Amino acid sequence: MSHNLLWGVDWYPEQWDKTLWESDVQRMAEQGFQVVRMMEFAWPILEPRPGNYDFSLFDSVIDILEKYKLTVVLGTPTAIMPVWLVDQDPTILAVHPNRLTRDFGCRRMGCMNAPVYQKAARQLVQAIADHYGPRQSIIGWQIDNEIGHEGSDHCVCDHCRAAWHRWLEKRYETIEELNRRWGTIFWGSTYTRFDQIPLPRQQVATNHNPALLLDYDRFSSDTAVSWAEAQVQIIRQKARAHQFITTNLYPAPLAQCIDMEDMVRIMDAAGWDNYPVWGNQDEPLPYFFTSYVLSYVRGLHPSGNFKVMEEFSGIQGHTQLGHLPPPEQVALWTNQAIARGANAIFYFRWRTAPYAQEQLCYGIRDTDNTETERERHIITNMQNLSPVLKTFASEPVPAEACLVYDRDTSRLIREQPLSLGMDRRPTSYMQVGYDAELARWFAPYVLYNVNCDIKSTKSVNLDNYKLISLPFYQITDEAFVQKLSDWVARGGHLVLGWRSGSRTTDNWNIDRPLPGLFRELAGIRVTNFEALGTGSTGICLKDTLIHQFISKIITCKGEVWADILEPETATIIARYRDSKKHYTGKPAFTRNKYGQGFVWYLGTSPDPKTTFFLYKSILKQAGLAGRFLGLGIEAVQRITQEGKTVMVLLNHTSKKKRVLGKIIPPWGTLVIDSI
Amino acid sequence: MSHNLLWGVDWYPEQWDKTLWESDVQRMAEQGFQVVRMMEFAWPILEPRPGNYDFSLFDSVIDILEKYKLTVVLGTPTAIMPVWLVDQDPTILAVHPNRLTRDFGCRRMGCMNAPVYQKAARQLVQAIADHYGPRQSIIGWQIDNEIGHEGSDHCVCDHCRAAWHRWLEKRYETIEELNRRWGTIFWGSTYTRFDQIPLPRQQVATNHNPALLLDYDRFSSDTAVSWAEAQVQIIRQKARAHQFITTNLYPAPLAQCIDMEDMVRIMDAAGWDNYPVWGNQDEPLPYFFTSYVLSYVRGLHPSGNFKVMEEFSGIQGHTQLGHLPPPEQVALWTNQAIARGANAIFYFRWRTAPYAQEQLCYGIRDTDNTETERERHIITNMQNLSPVLKTFASEPVPAEACLVYDRDTSRLIREQPLSLGMDRRPTSYMQVGYDAELARWFAPYVLYNVNCDIKSTKSVNLDNYKLISLPFYQITDEAFVQKLSDWVARGGHLVLGWRSGSRTTDNWNIDRPLPGLFRELAGIRVTNFEALGTGSTGICLKDTLIHQFISKIITCKGEVWADILEPETATIIARYRDSKKHYTGKPAFTRNKYGQGFVWYLGTSPDPKTTFFLYKSILKQAGLAGRFLGLGIEAVQRITQEGKTVMVLLNHTSKKKRVLGKIIPPWGTLVIDSI
Amino acid sequence: MSHNLLWGVDWYPEQWDKTLWESDVQRMAEQGFQVVRMMEFAWPILEPRPGNYDFSLFDSVIDILEKYKLTVVLGTPTAIMPVWLVDQDPTILAVHPNRLTRDFGCRRMGCMNAPVYQKAARQLVQAIADHYGPRQSIIGWQIDNEIGHEGSDHCVCDHCRAAWHRWLEKRYETIEELNRRWGTIFWGSTYTRFDQIPLPRQQVATNHNPALLLDYDRFSSDTAVSWAEAQVQIIRQKARAHQFITTNLYPAPLAQCIDMEDMVRIMDAAGWDNYPVWGNQDEPLPYFFTSYVLSYVRGLHPSGNFKVMEEFSGIQGHTQLGHLPPPEQVALWTNQAIARGANAIFYFRWRTAPYAQEQLCYGIRDTDNTETERERHIITNMQNLSPVLKTFASEPVPAEACLVYDRDTSRLIREQPLSLGMDRRPTSYMQVGYDAELARWFAPYVLYNVNCDIKSTKSVNLDNYKLISLPFYQITDEAFVQKLSDWVARGGHLVLGWRSGSRTTDNWNIDRPLPGLFRELAGIRVTNFEALGTGSTGICLKDTLIHQFISKIITCKGEVWADILEPETATIIARYRDSKKHYTGKPAFTRNKYGQGFVWYLGTSPDPKTTFFLYKSILKQAGLAGRFLGLGIEAVQRITQEGKTVMVLLNHTSKKKRVLGKIIPPWGTLVIDSI
Repeated sequence: MSHNLLWGVDWYPEQWDKTLWESDVQRMAEQGFQVVRMMEFAWPILEPRPGNYDFSLFDSVIDILEKYKLTVVLGTPTAIMPVWLVDQDPTILAVHPNRLTRDFGCRRMGCMNAPVYQKAARQLVQAIADHYGPRQSIIGWQIDNEIGHEGSDHCVCDHCRAAWHRWLEKRYETIEELNRRWGTIFWGSTYTRFDQIPLPRQQVATNHNPALLLDYDRFSSDTAVSWAEAQVQIIRQKARAHQFITTNLYPAPLAQCIDMEDMVRIMDAAGWDNYPVWGNQDEPLPYFFTSYVLSYVRGLHPSGNFKVMEEFSGIQGHTQLGHLPPPEQVALWTNQAIARGANAIFYFRWRTAPYAQEQLCYGIRDTDNTETERERHIITNMQNLSPVLKTFASEPVPAEACLVYDRDTSRLIREQPLSLGMDRRPTSYMQVGYDAELARWFAPYVLYNVNCDIKSTKSVNLDNYKLISLPFYQITDEAFVQKLSDWVARGGHLVLGWRSGSRTTDNWNIDRPLPGLFRELAGIRVTNFEALGTGSTGICLKDTLIHQFISKIITCKGEVWADILEPETATIIARYRDSKKHYTGKPAFTRNKYGQGFVWYLGTSPDPKTTFFLYKSILKQAGLAGRFLGLGIEAVQRITQEGKTVMVLLNHTSKKKRVLGKIIPPWGTLVIDSI
Repeated sequence: MSHNLLWGVDWYPEQWDKTLWESDVQRMAEQGFQVVRMMEFAWPILEPRPGNYDFSLFDSVIDILEKYKLTVVLGTPTAIMPVWLVDQDPTILAVHPNRLTRDFGCRRMGCMNAPVYQKAARQLVQAIADHYGPRQSIIGWQIDNEIGHEGSDHCVCDHCRAAWHRWLEKRYETIEELNRRWGTIFWGSTYTRFDQIPLPRQQVATNHNPALLLDYDRFSSDTAVSWAEAQVQIIRQKARAHQFITTNLYPAPLAQCIDMEDMVRIMDAAGWDNYPVWGNQDEPLPYFFTSYVLSYVRGLHPSGNFKVMEEFSGIQGHTQLGHLPPPEQVALWTNQAIARGANAIFYFRWRTAPYAQEQLCYGIRDTDNTETERERHIITNMQNLSPVLKTFASEPVPAEACLVYDRDTSRLIREQPLSLGMDRRPTSYMQVGYDAELARWFAPYVLYNVNCDIKSTKSVNLDNYKLISLPFYQITDEAFVQKLSDWVARGGHLVLGWRSGSRTTDNWNIDRPLPGLFRELAGIRVTNFEALGTGSTGICLKDTLIHQFISKIITCKGEVWADILEPETATIIARYRDSKKHYTGKPAFTRNKYGQGFVWYLGTSPDPKTTFFLYKSILKQAGLAGRFLGLGIEAVQRITQEGKTVMVLLNHTSKKKRVLGKIIPPWGTLVIDSI
Repeated sequence: MSHNLLWGVDWYPEQWDKTLWESDVQRMAEQGFQVVRMMEFAWPILEPRPGNYDFSLFDSVIDILEKYKLTVVLGTPTAIMPVWLVDQDPTILAVHPNRLTRDFGCRRMGCMNAPVYQKAARQLVQAIADHYGPRQSIIGWQIDNEIGHEGSDHCVCDHCRAAWHRWLEKRYETIEELNRRWGTIFWGSTYTRFDQIPLPRQQVATNHNPALLLDYDRFSSDTAVSWAEAQVQIIRQKARAHQFITTNLYPAPLAQCIDMEDMVRIMDAAGWDNYPVWGNQDEPLPYFFTSYVLSYVRGLHPSGNFKVMEEFSGIQGHTQLGHLPPPEQVALWTNQAIARGANAIFYFRWRTAPYAQEQLCYGIRDTDNTETERERHIITNMQNLSPVLKTFASEPVPAEACLVYDRDTSRLIREQPLSLGMDRRPTSYMQVGYDAELARWFAPYVLYNVNCDIKSTKSVNLDNYKLISLPFYQITDEAFVQKLSDWVARGGHLVLGWRSGSRTTDNWNIDRPLPGLFRELAGIRVTNFEALGTGSTGICLKDTLIHQFISKIITCKGEVWADILEPETATIIARYRDSKKHYTGKPAFTRNKYGQGFVWYLGTSPDPKTTFFLYKSILKQAGLAGRFLGLGIEAVQRITQEGKTVMVLLNHTSKKKRVLGKIIPPWGTLVIDSI
């Protein structure tokens, strides 16, 4: 078994008659799978009565798996709890900010601050670790399941109230300090004790102070991280050395409040549930968006790789389905994930559940257990490509460019989206505007096939990169700006986005002209701004001869926001050109030479055409060899264990394509020597 | 007075000064009305204090009605309750699944499982039956009013909690059986006692197990049926032989959970409130939709006829109005109802209420009590057409075709609509997607003017029919499939829709290839499927020469869903043809010879053009003489008491039309000898 | 300092370091400002502990202001409360009809019927009045802040429950009288005691009796008025003679239930917060809409002028921003307010708050405290135009036309909008349909530059006017109709809108043919009607030769509603002309000679083209010299202190315009001698 690239399935033996178990495992083995993930919703099976543990079912299953040389990743089943725990203490049920108490019978309904739930979960995990930690065939652990998903990142119950007040007291020490830093003098909401501070439930009209909202996000993140950490610590003590610990994150990356870097820090790898299409979507997410999320997950952990704990096999939905991808595309998505850094793929799921909330979540096979077309493609792809993919799957992904995000800014944008164009709510509990914009800023790297990391302001190592994109960095840390400045001065290339530098770490409007701490670095002042909502403004590129030419024949557009710039030391590289805007003619994009490096400032979000022409020159100036290979063609460079550079070519179109002299079939994958 | 066709009005004498009563009744008599419905909201008048009954108001009114030879249908006024009952026990107020407790002052605010409400209602009905049962002029009874309307089919209060747990215990006997059949092993929601089982309140994100939701629908249906039955039993004991018992159902037929066949089973007829336009609709429902609902009501009760307890007269709305139909069309809708099986019409309402929630529900006359244009048309129509209409109004409607629906499937579709195209929510508490699709499947029979029944899987007598349409029969009963197979083998023609056969009666995904139990009958396998949402896919008909011709010049479309078919013994009669679909070229519709009969399988919902061309050949093959008479022309065949076959021609257009050699005025009705 | 026109700013010294105070005040003085408004959210500063008052902060601030000869308007800070008051009694937090309890930390979260809140607020106001009433530099008082805003006009808590029952008992004396006038016989909601009557919380489906809803609006209005009156009475006793009392109202004028005439009656002037663009609007409100709201505010108080307590300076929003107006337009909006009757302008706000809920509400300067472009324009405009504007700013605005609204009708329309076209909900707690329609009826006066007052049915003095527009006057008072009739008979010109005369003051449908009490005056009967929703109907003007000509080349449209008219003594001046409407050809608009005057009846809401052509002839007939000066040009006539008539020309376009021989720059203002 190669540990360089794990192929697995998500299997729920408890949902099937035990007479099926061996034939299932035998087929897994025959098809080439190496590992199964299981047990992540099995608490009532493992502990049918309080303190009474029963591992017999999974023991039997693991015996069979071992017989066929399959290994196991175990999930800690704390995303649900047994009904007896709710009997013991109904207050463990979480209360959503919309004021609805969650009910037993769903998932993620427990409050992670509820002591009874915490204690029971830890005892269970201890028992599991004691029992399975020593077992050789266990090669990994998944902590809980999709922590924070479906709005469970926020709870406003009384357990949370107490924990929130403790958290605030620890952070601010005195109520005066909190009042000062939150600006509670505004609207007279000055507090005199920590226990007076409300939890951010849904309001009728204007919401709470954004400083309170931001801190509640930080508090809720800490809650979730502690929840996971407690389990990691227990397992670490019992786990054998070869066992990895991860957890499975989920889309959209930054739409909930949890800092996933904190979450996976003490684990061995980040994990991701990879569903490029889900529910009633009428088409898959754009491929650059999927590349964005995969690269985000890769960037979460220093290991430089990640695991796909759930990989799309059949179409998925809870109450509605949508677009059916061709089976070739299902295989393509697997390869894309590996190209972007995954070194383990677990297909969700071995076989479709006959019943319950996910009976429309189709697996590799349907409930009827007969071979499916997608199964043939998945297996063939695995068998054919695994030999070449595993030569680089566990190697770091080389990258000289990096997209940098800021977790606090992303939290704030959820509550204060600034522009209707940043306010995208696919469900009541998600605001994916920040993710959508980040993906827009990642898109040029996909377009020009330049490997690009995604890192947070907290963890990025600037010196690894020639070019950094940093959009909407609002909640600005002075030390990080200094690091950026030094890096640019030493020759770095920085692309700043609108609104950068506008707030302090306490979310105050900065007390100096915008872009605040970036003024000297960008060489500009932002004199005013407009939110473009879902509309746009015309812009006119003028940096290169090509820009000047294309500006005559097409109209480039800026979206979401428009900063009006006044260059101080910077060069104007685009101006607004829109007869409906009174600021037509004013600078929109600038480039500033700073020391040995350059800083671009984009006052508005470029539309696709603008992105195409703008980044051509940015990449060139930064010395990155971007190559546009046609729309729908994605190329990722990887380095094999032997140090050879290869290129993974992914054809995201339904047409046969000739790329770099090679033919790639529709939805095909080709790994070639880099040229 | 002819009992073959009753003409009546809905009258609220309690809302008017008693000096108006006699003049009102005199006019009713002069205009030709025979009966009034009244009393259905009069509980506080009848029982002003607990146990203190006062029938004087309605006694006086009935005296006047009798003087003018008018008869009476009495409504039991239990859709509301007197304020003193809420004083006695505020817990009788129902709690909607959205967690809002209903308030006194509206309607349908009582929980039908609340013992205090049940007892008071039964005592009241007993008193009414005792008092009015013996009276000759009372010719019928309406039980309650629109039971289950406005989201009142579901309540999640503590009375319901207790009843729900009893109901579950009765159904499953052991909690282990419930766990097994619901699949509670999924997400670890295994129960150990019945009283742990939640009520399906609104959740933050993913909803409850669909098996729980389906059972709650069944439970809520049983609740409503018991509520009505208790009243029927009381009245039966006191009612004179000539008195019929009905209740008034309401649109959309299948958007609430109550099984109306169960409800009207022990009554004498089904009743319907017929509003082809209501509220702020900017146009009436399509005429085939109204025919669909009328035919549905007709099919509910073995009597083969039904009563329209409320028939549109003036425009209607609670807070907003919309489209104003011309008065000719108001009369047309009356005649359409009779053509489709109504043998009693009660116009809603005699005169517009001056006040309260329905002051925008206009009656035959406005509050000013002067003659209206619509009044002239209604009366003229009644006087002119009654002689001919009554020759067949109480006769069975002959039909050789039948559209079959499934109540459990319709319940499930509300919570699990499968496709965005099946998810239509005109209000927060209604999901009419199943009705909209059924109407689509009924439309070809209207288009080709083939009389068609609508029956449930539970009650349909297959041998009555040559052709049966059975769309989305998901919750599949093995015995019914066997009956269908036998019937097809004997020469029946069956049109199956996508998703048929996909689930067991416990709503499990079936453990064999789709279409499950229909595989042999349909002669196909469904290898995969896509939900089309609100989009569509191209299809290419190829069954007949005409199909082949029209496929060259127009593009037929499939909507909502696309099953990809693999014929085993069936003939392909249409293929997908859509360059955007990877399954283009795959079979979409098939026809299978099975014994002496034929089975069509439609893998997608045909759009209107497709319907037109497809059903032309289906009807022909089934030996049904369909005749397309132009868009907007509806023809219904009826047989008179004397056995003569006549055809009711309805012109749903604003133009004069020549049909079968006759001229029908705009919105006109013509009854001709069948040809 | 001229009291004829006050220029001020809204300043929050408590939000800034005290070292900034003097430089701020010095700059205000240098720029020409005369007054600051402050203190309206400062309760916790003034009373940090119960009963412990501390005026030191504002004393210091006022000392500085006085040093620079600036004066002060003080706001009573009762729109919020200190946290200790919520500690004392958490039940003071209001409960919105959507059943959400408001939380501390926002604003307007107190219930104005809560005794503890009432008492604390009055004691505070007393302390403030005692302390600041004698101070010479205090020139005015603002009561509370935006009373009723953000849905706070309605509360359904237990304090309100008790007050509501007392209010009802006072109004109706006996429960029988309430039952009769509400029509509670409908749906059997007859009450036997006042304390049974529900509060209008959100319902699942059909709402409460509209009579209950209307009375709850009246009750809630009385609550708010009492709240303000209590403060006015306290301040009056301590205020020096030169100090005015006002409060600041807010858009949309009639979307909440409070009768603002009642509110400002015992004050000295009405106040308004003037934001022609706010939040994520992608363009400003149409200029005629802003003129409508300004004229509405002017009409609220007999003084004939009003104060803008908050005037737009920088862009504003809580979580999102939108359109950025050019700075010239910011100045223009100031001048428009003064032209329409404002004699005090307070710019909101001196400097953008760095933190909290309004950190996106930009002031004259940003948080960085450097000069902005808008600042230069605001100051220049003030300095340049103040000399001429102050010659008339405090003089009455002459007007011979008046738009009359009805407060009860506006309340009713919120709950019963009649047509989807009247149902406009920018937020969950606002329904601005009535305002949007009133603005449509005001638009012709702006278009033709005819000064027009806006008055309520309660306060209008008919004899001041030649022409009165009275749309949708549903809740019809017989005495007012008589006054109107007399006034028309004496030569008045009245334009009535659809639905006029349809209800009694108890909101009963009138018991005579529509337009009810207006039948003789309008010389018509309304035989039927349709709600047009968001659609329209064609109409054909035929009153003048021009009408007949334009009807040949363009299609005029009616919107929202269509009354079908039958002239009795009136002349038809327009007919419906729409092939899709069965009432095509029926009269749409009529004109009736009545005594010496004329009455127009408009059966549908004219679209802009129709308005243009229709009002040309209406104004002419009424003897008003309307003059169309081009789209975007607004002209207001004013009379100076010396009695000279001048015309304020406002160019609401981005183009230079030649008007009456003068050049007005883009967004420019010109005051010329009237011609």
